[in-house]
Amino acid sequence: MKIYKKAILPKYFMANAVACGIKKSGKLDLALFYSGRPSKASCLFTTNKILAAPIKVSKKYLKNNGNFKGIIVNSGNANCFTGKLGEFDAQETTQNLAGILGINPQDILVNSTGIIGKRLPVKKILNALPKLAAGLSKKGVHRAKKAIMTTDTFAKEITAKINIGNKAVTICGIAKGAGMVAPDMATMLAFIFTDANITQRALDTALRAGVNNSFNCITVDGCMSTNDSVMLLANGAACNITIDSGKNFGLFLNALNTVCLELAKMTVKDAEGGTKFIQICVDKAKNFTQAKKAALYIANSNLFKTAIYGENPNFGRIAAAVGASGVDVREEDLKIKASPLNKKDIYICVSINRGKSCATVYTSDLTPGYIKINADYN
Amino acid sequence: MKIYKKAILPKYFMANAVACGIKKSGKLDLALFYSGRPSKASCLFTTNKILAAPIKVSKKYLKNNGNFKGIIVNSGNANCFTGKLGEFDAQETTQNLAGILGINPQDILVNSTGIIGKRLPVKKILNALPKLAAGLSKKGVHRAKKAIMTTDTFAKEITAKINIGNKAVTICGIAKGAGMVAPDMATMLAFIFTDANITQRALDTALRAGVNNSFNCITVDGCMSTNDSVMLLANGAACNITIDSGKNFGLFLNALNTVCLELAKMTVKDAEGGTKFIQICVDKAKNFTQAKKAALYIANSNLFKTAIYGENPNFGRIAAAVGASGVDVREEDLKIKASPLNKKDIYICVSINRGKSCATVYTSDLTPGYIKINADYN
Repeated sequence: MKIYKKAILPKYFMANAVACGIKKSGKLDLALFYSGRPSKASCLFTTNKILAAPIKVSKKYLKNNGNFKGIIVNSGNANCFTGKLGEFDAQETTQNLAGILGINPQDILVNSTGIIGKRLPVKKILNALPKLAAGLSKKGVHRAKKAIMTTDTFAKEITAKINIGNKAVTICGIAKGAGMVAPDMATMLAFIFTDANITQRALDTALRAGVNNSFNCITVDGCMSTNDSVMLLANGAACNITIDSGKNFGLFLNALNTVCLELAKMTVKDAEGGTKFIQICVDKAKNFTQAKKAALYIANSNLFKTAIYGENPNFGRIAAAVGASGVDVREEDLKIKASPLNKKDIYICVSINRGKSCATVYTSDLTPGYIKINADYN
Repeated sequence: MKIYKKAILPKYFMANAVACGIKKSGKLDLALFYSGRPSKASCLFTTNKILAAPIKVSKKYLKNNGNFKGIIVNSGNANCFTGKLGEFDAQETTQNLAGILGINPQDILVNSTGIIGKRLPVKKILNALPKLAAGLSKKGVHRAKKAIMTTDTFAKEITAKINIGNKAVTICGIAKGAGMVAPDMATMLAFIFTDANITQRALDTALRAGVNNSFNCITVDGCMSTNDSVMLLANGAACNITIDSGKNFGLFLNALNTVCLELAKMTVKDAEGGTKFIQICVDKAKNFTQAKKAALYIANSNLFKTAIYGENPNFGRIAAAVGASGVDVREEDLKIKASPLNKKDIYICVSINRGKSCATVYTSDLTPGYIKINADYN
């Protein structure tokens, strides 16, 4: 496997982005990803009960469909808590875009990110669609990766290349997310594109496994978004022998895992106001679920996060968080180790002497910068 | 019922406090509450699995005992995550104090608050005990209420007076708590004293009910402490007809509820770094549990708390929090109202159209002040 720290779209994929006017700053805010070949899609969405309108529309399109051609995403407005009008706006977007591209509306997935509870300025999107579609290109991904950003300070991109048989297969992922990041299903927006030829079952299995150890193991502020999605398109253009199980599935899974984990880590590194990148490993737990539960409880403790910000070795707060997590633990079994707190990268290891399982989660510190960003955000 | 916004100890109760040297600042850090008559005790403790040593010792003393004479509390050190030595230190404190007072060690409850994970400087406490005991007085409660403070900026105190039959009964409460406040059992330290003559069963029932609607409905940072306790002593000195059930129990319960709720609200008003006092009412829920769950989820959302700090009417964050809470809710049923955000007192009402129950929780905003306090705290 070769890893490239930038987005390199696989065969037949193109992208573009424009500034359609949703963001007052005039920055890029509308992205389109397009595949010249019909793609299988595998998606994971937030479990938040208040679901954004584009997610509802995408879920509807996902039923009985293996012919996806693209994904349209806007930033600056989440189109969430916007009722039936919101769904209407999302559908109108896909319908107009389908007309321009000469495809079916239900072959386009749709997503949004930004402020919750304000109606989407859909006219601005509709006006921008012809230019957006006309400018599709391989390199357009470098505009698209910026157009999905909100409070992000850098774009998240990664590409993995593997060989399946004698065919080169590419997996390319981009992501956004800096706040309202909490682990329950996908916890941000990520779009992953591959030219792999793979069965739907294998694609779904691989995505679920990849997300479970990456996007579902990160937290910035414990706040679950209404728009979180990981959308994966596979168009088969690599013409490799069909991946379903066995060694080839293992190769694909490993590459997809890497793409997901690297994007997840980048998201935490860009956490709103964050000054530290913190890896928390809970070891010797009864099982993975218990280990992850304890690790996330620490990661979401404001007192732990402020202590790390202050480079304050207040390990009592880690003990208090583990004790409050609901995980079975005894004081005399709890061992806590940490790397020096004056570095940017912090490793915390918590051993609880209950079994053989471990889990690692990734988080950031809680800082005045986070508060400034979120007190002013609208 | 008459309410006094200060601590007035009931009959036969006395208190005192000294600065024994645990706090580097030289402020008061050791408090003693004493009853000249044996008291029934009712206590509720944190459910954190990492339990502070004094809580373990107090729990042991509480078994088969209705003859309590006092409570000793230090601030500046939580005596938690300190192992067997911590328990030894707590016991040595009660044993030495018992010797001075001429009573049994197991008739003294013990508590601590402050930093977790450092050994209690028990010698400093032992040296101060003779002076502490010698200075007991009615007015000593005004020193004691300060001695239990850590990051608190003001003392929390309240007194309720009622008549049971023709006898005056007093309930006096003091509390500490400004951070590491989250609702699960008692979520701070509170000490309540009454001269009521009441059965153990009625005392326990009343305390559980009182705490459920007050201390268990507040949150500052969602972080559950290892030392949280509500300790209630009833010495019967009012010589009223024994309270057990019926109208007299109702009178007592109502007064105790008021004392608990006022102390709980004061705790939130003194939240670390807080600039707002926020009441969140979730209405039309299926039952109280669901209403409280949704309300607490909002209250613990860092994004909600920073929005209130920024006086930013970002109600989408409230919707996102309710949706993430796990409570059954539909977007079209969710109605959110709020009082003007530029005031210090904020009322949020969230209606979810699922039933007839409501719950109110109390919280603060999340501010740079909270981070400053907790980045530096040690």
